[in-house]
Amino acid sequence: MEGDACDPDRPAHPGTFPAGECGRTDQQPPERRVDFPVSVVLPAGGTGERTGLQTPKQFCLFMGRPLISYTIQAVERVLWIQNIVVVVAKEHMDLMTDIIQQFRHRKVRAVPGGSTRHRSICNGVLALGEQEEEKERLLSADRPKVVIIHDAVRPFVEEDFLYKIAMAAKEQGAAGAIRPLVSTVIATTSEGYLDHSLERAKYRASEMPQGFTYDVIYQAYQRCTESDFEVGTECLHLALQYCGTNAKLIEGPPTLWKVTYKRDLAAAESIIKETLSRSACVITGGSEQAVPLADAIQKAAGALDMALDVIPNLMGDNCRYLLKEYNFIQVSVNRSCLSEVKSILKDLEAANQALLHPLVIILVHLSCPDELSISRAMPELAAFMDVASAANLRNILLYGIQVHQSKDTERWERSVLRVAEITSALIRERSPALVGQLLQA
Amino acid sequence: MEGDACDPDRPAHPGTFPAGECGRTDQQPPERRVDFPVSVVLPAGGTGERTGLQTPKQFCLFMGRPLISYTIQAVERVLWIQNIVVVVAKEHMDLMTDIIQQFRHRKVRAVPGGSTRHRSICNGVLALGEQEEEKERLLSADRPKVVIIHDAVRPFVEEDFLYKIAMAAKEQGAAGAIRPLVSTVIATTSEGYLDHSLERAKYRASEMPQGFTYDVIYQAYQRCTESDFEVGTECLHLALQYCGTNAKLIEGPPTLWKVTYKRDLAAAESIIKETLSRSACVITGGSEQAVPLADAIQKAAGALDMALDVIPNLMGDNCRYLLKEYNFIQVSVNRSCLSEVKSILKDLEAANQALLHPLVIILVHLSCPDELSISRAMPELAAFMDVASAANLRNILLYGIQVHQSKDTERWERSVLRVAEITSALIRERSPALVGQLLQA
Repeated sequence: MEGDACDPDRPAHPGTFPAGECGRTDQQPPERRVDFPVSVVLPAGGTGERTGLQTPKQFCLFMGRPLISYTIQAVERVLWIQNIVVVVAKEHMDLMTDIIQQFRHRKVRAVPGGSTRHRSICNGVLALGEQEEEKERLLSADRPKVVIIHDAVRPFVEEDFLYKIAMAAKEQGAAGAIRPLVSTVIATTSEGYLDHSLERAKYRASEMPQGFTYDVIYQAYQRCTESDFEVGTECLHLALQYCGTNAKLIEGPPTLWKVTYKRDLAAAESIIKETLSRSACVITGGSEQAVPLADAIQKAAGALDMALDVIPNLMGDNCRYLLKEYNFIQVSVNRSCLSEVKSILKDLEAANQALLHPLVIILVHLSCPDELSISRAMPELAAFMDVASAANLRNILLYGIQVHQSKDTERWERSVLRVAEITSALIRERSPALVGQLLQA
Repeated sequence: MEGDACDPDRPAHPGTFPAGECGRTDQQPPERRVDFPVSVVLPAGGTGERTGLQTPKQFCLFMGRPLISYTIQAVERVLWIQNIVVVVAKEHMDLMTDIIQQFRHRKVRAVPGGSTRHRSICNGVLALGEQEEEKERLLSADRPKVVIIHDAVRPFVEEDFLYKIAMAAKEQGAAGAIRPLVSTVIATTSEGYLDHSLERAKYRASEMPQGFTYDVIYQAYQRCTESDFEVGTECLHLALQYCGTNAKLIEGPPTLWKVTYKRDLAAAESIIKETLSRSACVITGGSEQAVPLADAIQKAAGALDMALDVIPNLMGDNCRYLLKEYNFIQVSVNRSCLSEVKSILKDLEAANQALLHPLVIILVHLSCPDELSISRAMPELAAFMDVASAANLRNILLYGIQVHQSKDTERWERSVLRVAEITSALIRERSPALVGQLLQA
């Protein structure tokens, strides 16, 4: 393991993040050239009325981490974004500061919001200005700068789209994401009857992110009225009205979707879990019996839409898996399989991989056909549960599967398929309640 | 068990259905008085473009059952709805007929759709007409009748709202569901720039269900143009334009939401699973040791937001649980615990409860502190797995939890809490991959 990658003070790879529901891969897009400073304002002052929950949705936990941290991560990983201001309600300032610390977010600071959405965004923009002025005194940073405004509750935004918005904003002064309308929009009479319906093709839903040159968004807020601050919702509208800037509209992907209702929390969790579950790394220890079992599991998992890489160990070049993989399967034929698991645990902790997402380790133990191995394994089972409980506290989920060797081909193939099915279910569900269990294939 | 409830030819209680995300209970709303015939048309011809999946979303499976079957169930359970026409693409007619048979839907028939949404709805309305005319010859059914049009991909509609739509449609000729706009709607220039944004308060999203008197919807389709059939999306608009009928607009709950994107599939599954996981029934067999354990599990589960009822068995009055509960926990201290499980399985199969939703049975086995019970239970474990595999084929998910008795109070309480946690996770996740496993508390 190289020293840099193991620095325990920072997330191992903030760049890798669930890539959303478009079926894209985890791979980093090619690096973009952005030769002007870009900052981001994340308004996060919402009170969560529409989810029907007590906790505002940006602070709802997904596998132990608040939604806002996922959104910050999505923005923070972009190399050409310099700094991020999160605007939160005064009563959440302490919570937000804790979140920034706990998940080791860099580039980020929290500022208190105002009484309306526009006042909050304006606070964020002004805070950026202060920051920029400071920086200018020190560095005389280049102008024009672009400010991207994004919602705290749209965690699946991708670099590619942020880039499009930043470039269009720099060129046009303002740019915003749009999406096709899902429902027909209708105008109602004051008595609650249909007045007319809008022609769907001519209208779009205005979404986030939006981008502005600093000057445009700053001037728009300087010039707008109290009433704009109170009731307005559309920054692009302010740019048009007060700066004469016609925003460029860019059609965004479905991943821009905003977590609004309670059902959206389930959808978000499912997207995050799905992204963490696409692949796993199978470690054989190089043993003669473990390798064919690993290969068979790999094949069976492929049929279940999970891609497995089989490697002998995590040393040398293979240590890269510690930095890119969320799921590890240790195939073992040894009585001392627990020491193999402990060794992976040690490596993962050194790589500080479990800071942002819970990792899964599954011990697949191959036992002889006649061996009453559960009974003999009893004392070891208690030790396994203890190791799993301790790992759980460090956000690593450890499970066991026992598979009995068989010379009956059909029976053996059925067992291997069950290992793959159980593995796939454990990885997808990431259930803390089941850690330390030894399941039978 | 009473004879009627066991009739294997019909679902035991089509009335009980996930009540959506509003935190409402499963309880039936009070019966509504509707003294005119109401029919429903469910257009289900969509091709699923927006989910990015090969299977159109109305046919996507949720725990083994297609989405359209959930929507049919939501409508079918309403006593005052007489019949339902599902309109599907010609190539899906056989599939739809199979679904109606497999899930024993009554009141329902499938008719082939047209090339656009309006042509499909029109086919459905005309099919109802034929049906109604037949009926009239036989029964001289009362007029006016109301036709409710609802989307196949909005499975969480509630009786209460269908009632409001039916009553308003009868009174006004037409009625439709509306929801507040989630995003600001903007008009775009032909070059892709912002033209203007709409004032959000004056507009609404038009949703489903919509209701019409048969005459209004029939006339609207008779009089409308080819172009309306080709590009129109709004039935309320046709009623206004061709029949002069101003639709009454009724604000609907968030549960009316339409499964549109892939993320919505996850949200829908989560809502269904959550609704199935609110409660469970604990069966003690009346044993002296099982009762206090059951009570302790009940208490621990309460802290996890799951309501448990503890009963000695499923006989007499308690047989009602067979018709209303999706989750059963058998607490046992016997070596012959498998026979107790087999007895519940037999009762559940007789009640035909697993037709619409997978049921969960968890065997909680209490063993003596010093007993190396896993080893002794080994032959029994194999038998348990066989029973579980067989039950799985009948849509019943069987799991086991072993808990060791302890005189150390703290240790015992920890074990009971783990039973509750594991139980709660198994019930919520309903994972077929884990059936037959014996977990350790």
